[in-house]
Amino acid sequence: MTDADTTVQQLREAMQQFVAERQWERYHAPKNLVMGLAIETAELMEHFLWLDVEESRQRGNDPRHREAIADELADVCCYVLALANALQLDLSAAVEAKLEKNARKYPVERYRGRFEPD
Amino acid sequence: MTDADTTVQQLREAMQQFVAERQWERYHAPKNLVMGLAIETAELMEHFLWLDVEESRQRGNDPRHREAIADELADVCCYVLALANALQLDLSAAVEAKLEKNARKYPVERYRGRFEPD
Amino acid sequence: MTDADTTVQQLREAMQQFVAERQWERYHAPKNLVMGLAIETAELMEHFLWLDVEESRQRGNDPRHREAIADELADVCCYVLALANALQLDLSAAVEAKLEKNARKYPVERYRGRFEPD
Amino acid sequence: MTDADTTVQQLREAMQQFVAERQWERYHAPKNLVMGLAIETAELMEHFLWLDVEESRQRGNDPRHREAIADELADVCCYVLALANALQLDLSAAVEAKLEKNARKYPVERYRGRFEPD
Repeated sequence: MTDADTTVQQLREAMQQFVAERQWERYHAPKNLVMGLAIETAELMEHFLWLDVEESRQRGNDPRHREAIADELADVCCYVLALANALQLDLSAAVEAKLEKNARKYPVERYRGRFEPD
Repeated sequence: MTDADTTVQQLREAMQQFVAERQWERYHAPKNLVMGLAIETAELMEHFLWLDVEESRQRGNDPRHREAIADELADVCCYVLALANALQLDLSAAVEAKLEKNARKYPVERYRGRFEPD
Repeated sequence: MTDADTTVQQLREAMQQFVAERQWERYHAPKNLVMGLAIETAELMEHFLWLDVEESRQRGNDPRHREAIADELADVCCYVLALANALQLDLSAAVEAKLEKNARKYPVERYRGRFEPD
Repeated sequence: MTDADTTVQQLREAMQQFVAERQWERYHAPKNLVMGLAIETAELMEHFLWLDVEESRQRGNDPRHREAIADELADVCCYVLALANALQLDLSAAVEAKLEKNARKYPVERYRGRFEPD
């Protein structure tokens, strides 16, 4: 599976199948899953904790760290997929709506290269 | 866009375009993005803070809350996509590898319906 | 040291001395320390991830888990103390002000036993 | 109340009284409180999200931001105190034990000015 040829739905189904095979749906309540997401996010964070912002870019390119970083990002992703499944929410529609909302909130001409309005 | 007909790559490109139009790449270092992910995860968490685990399922189905929950989940998703873009990591490949790894770690026959091995 | 006979200042100084001996002040910028706090909070969270809210109380009383939980809570505390030191903020004054603010926000007669106003 | 003349126990009692007056003990299970701690930590994090590490020090000294930062740090503190109360754990003893443990883990002569051993 690669991002270019995998739909979000296919990823969600792969996650769903993993959970269903183990009958873990009863643990997959939103409250638990969002805690799991926070825990995995923290594990990803550990890779960058004491680094300067610029160093964190280099760390992301360092072959000695990339695999471990990808591993943590995958854990984060799995919880996002599990949340979408548990909540029966469409991630693509939600992201599309959010980007449209943010496009109005941060118009290009005022926010180019900055977070504070021009 | 819906999960059934949107590839992960298409979502990543939508996010990338949003960032590029605003020339925000310089802010999108992994250290910043993972902090952003933690912040949005916490905002999603707020919806379930004082609820029991079972109540959190009902909250997820409550039409008065679903839109706000979807909105927060979208923010989480956007940061995951931005991280994948900044780190140039393939989410689908990472998730597939993770599920295979976890399938070996949690064999179905020993973990069905439980987190502790049988 | 016990809570009954230790001032907050004494805890802060113990932390400060630990950091100074190792000349770690240069790493102790607020951005790093708050990430460290998030990471340790997540490690504390792990103890309660798949438990029901009520079960989490029992876990906290379970002698097999109490030491590990105390260990994680101590890590959280150390980061709070380090943040107070790095930011030169008085924790006791801040907590006192916050409790007064929250007492006005949540008057006893309207919030007794509930989070939603009566 | 100031850190120099306030014991940890006094802070814990102030928090306990606030909770007891509102009969909120039933919400104060460890699982909920650690989620609250994560949420408040994220709100503190927001102040430093897009800043460089060095800029985060300046932000901490900026009078326009200090009050809001102190406010968020107080929220973090309140949850730590509430957790100590709910779990009946002594924070000072836990911090003392942790600093002793870390002093053995990071001996001064090998870790002075660095996180990697000399």
